[in-house]
Amino acid sequence: MFWNEIRTPAALIDLDRLEANTSRISERVRKLGATLRPHVKTHKCVEAARLQIRGHFGGITVSTLAEARFFARAGFRDITYAVPIATSRLEEAVEIGRSIDALHLLLDHQATFEAMSACARAKAARLSSFLKVDCGYHRAGVDPESDASVALALRMARSADVDFRGILTHAGHSYHATNAAEIRAVAETERSVMARFAEKLIRAGAPPKAVSVGSTPTISLGDSLEGVTEARPGNYVFYDRFQAAVGSCGIANAAFSVLATVLSHYPERNEILIDAGGLALSRDEGPTHLDADCGYGEVFSADGRAHLASLRVRSLSQEHGKIQGVTPIDYSALPVGTKLRVVPNHSCLSAALFDRYHVFRGDAAVDEWRPVRGW
Amino acid sequence: MFWNEIRTPAALIDLDRLEANTSRISERVRKLGATLRPHVKTHKCVEAARLQIRGHFGGITVSTLAEARFFARAGFRDITYAVPIATSRLEEAVEIGRSIDALHLLLDHQATFEAMSACARAKAARLSSFLKVDCGYHRAGVDPESDASVALALRMARSADVDFRGILTHAGHSYHATNAAEIRAVAETERSVMARFAEKLIRAGAPPKAVSVGSTPTISLGDSLEGVTEARPGNYVFYDRFQAAVGSCGIANAAFSVLATVLSHYPERNEILIDAGGLALSRDEGPTHLDADCGYGEVFSADGRAHLASLRVRSLSQEHGKIQGVTPIDYSALPVGTKLRVVPNHSCLSAALFDRYHVFRGDAAVDEWRPVRGW
Repeated sequence: MFWNEIRTPAALIDLDRLEANTSRISERVRKLGATLRPHVKTHKCVEAARLQIRGHFGGITVSTLAEARFFARAGFRDITYAVPIATSRLEEAVEIGRSIDALHLLLDHQATFEAMSACARAKAARLSSFLKVDCGYHRAGVDPESDASVALALRMARSADVDFRGILTHAGHSYHATNAAEIRAVAETERSVMARFAEKLIRAGAPPKAVSVGSTPTISLGDSLEGVTEARPGNYVFYDRFQAAVGSCGIANAAFSVLATVLSHYPERNEILIDAGGLALSRDEGPTHLDADCGYGEVFSADGRAHLASLRVRSLSQEHGKIQGVTPIDYSALPVGTKLRVVPNHSCLSAALFDRYHVFRGDAAVDEWRPVRGW
Repeated sequence: MFWNEIRTPAALIDLDRLEANTSRISERVRKLGATLRPHVKTHKCVEAARLQIRGHFGGITVSTLAEARFFARAGFRDITYAVPIATSRLEEAVEIGRSIDALHLLLDHQATFEAMSACARAKAARLSSFLKVDCGYHRAGVDPESDASVALALRMARSADVDFRGILTHAGHSYHATNAAEIRAVAETERSVMARFAEKLIRAGAPPKAVSVGSTPTISLGDSLEGVTEARPGNYVFYDRFQAAVGSCGIANAAFSVLATVLSHYPERNEILIDAGGLALSRDEGPTHLDADCGYGEVFSADGRAHLASLRVRSLSQEHGKIQGVTPIDYSALPVGTKLRVVPNHSCLSAALFDRYHVFRGDAAVDEWRPVRGW
């Protein structure tokens, strides 16, 4: 029982589940006819990324330049940095790009295009960039219905300094869904908006080399990627409580959990205290659109076999987690010192709080993986 | 202008403000007649802890055994680990305690007392422990009105293996206050509950050596520490947006901020995108009891002089921060590439996301501090 040997709080990865998740999405994307360029931001470690690209061309997606540097050094040769780049960090991107086959950037503003062009000229480099498109999430990206967006794509396509890689979107509004049918509807919007915009750009004389989409809900459930060339899901490697709540997966697919210890009992409040707080589970609010009172995680026995569904992670301070019983807690079954597994709301934010992951199969530890951190 | 040289997102510490905060609380606690044993969990770095203990006896409070180890190695000789200890980690506590003058632990359950006693016997050590008391926050601690609590204190006082250090509480419900008067009322409860419980223990034959209280709101504003021997505030070193909202400080006292860069403009939504997301600012919800729509931070110009109060940090994903204007944004004043300072809701959780702090005075960088991490 590997969990008896581990100090808590600790990050656990169920390798059987992780491999099932990566295989399933790998197959799905292949069948849907797109290239898989998985996002590695959820785990930020080399070992999980290698499992994600197995059987695919090897390209990945990252969320920071620190990840780009880390994965480039680990031998990954084709990387997309999928956040509109800060103009002050373009020179770093040139350096990283020179060390591998291709580093693709994102922009959605004329000023970034100009800074990118100027940097490429100054460094005698060419920079590859996507035009980021807003397919309805309204976080970042240009409006695919606007003439100005076509005009910006044309400037990119005609540039001597910037390689116009194509168009890229993230349907983050799939996280607002309440069930699988709604996710499929968002997936269809993501696909059709991008396919239409790509056609418009071809007619305008700015043909995209790649049409890239990707969110874990839409790639887990979407029916078609017609008109799309590339998929970039990431969270599916671990999944989490949020994904299970909206219907991307079942809670039994969650490959990441936090091992915690029962510190004390408060029968007068029907509560127990654990040593996993906001710095272990993260303060991500979770699927509050489905359950305003959802709390911060789903509780399981240390061996992962028993779902203690009547225990709710009610509140988190820095190093304290307060668990409340929906029904009266059987304290004799959870003595002080008992270890528990908690599947957090958002595995990306929780995993990033740990220096190492304890990787196991069944009851046996099999590896220890170390993620990169920072920017 | 030191901020021009820094890659974003980055953690900034305004040393003038930090020193003003540490001096003010140092003086307050001295005048109130208590010993100051400041909490270091907010910053987790040696340099800030040294400023906190200046003019005091040198004892500190930590929130993890990793902090205890780190500060012990840095020369701190008297440390309280202020979370009820996990029984599986008692042996580590013995080792750390042997390397310094005193490591004080916490317990609030009979089972932990028994495990502590057994560990002390097995290791031929004595373990010093507080009895943790619940003064109304209802997170951890024994009920001071209960006879069982007195009985547990008596067992500790009579133990051959455990040194009964005294009683300790944290009035975390001061964070639920809506103004300074309410904080003062919580402070008076914290003080009086502990003073009364101490008297009861003296009468029962379990006199506490220390009567320890501490939360930043109550120590910032409380009028009296009569009957209390020790204060353990921590967040005051940085303060933050939450503390300013409840009235512990002004927003101009906030010594910690996150430097971010404007990545793009979305005039159609009156929004801008910055490169500080949930992994820089943390997803702490902030003072939602005062403003359900408060968002994730307070925005200032890069030099810290202009409070851009009409900009709200509306949402955070992993590496994206979405800022919305309450009034129409003047984009010409915030071109792409502009740097901004964001004071996060909860400085403890945000600071823990960074590997280093950029320490400055006025417009000049003066130092770089590195916090400890993990457990």
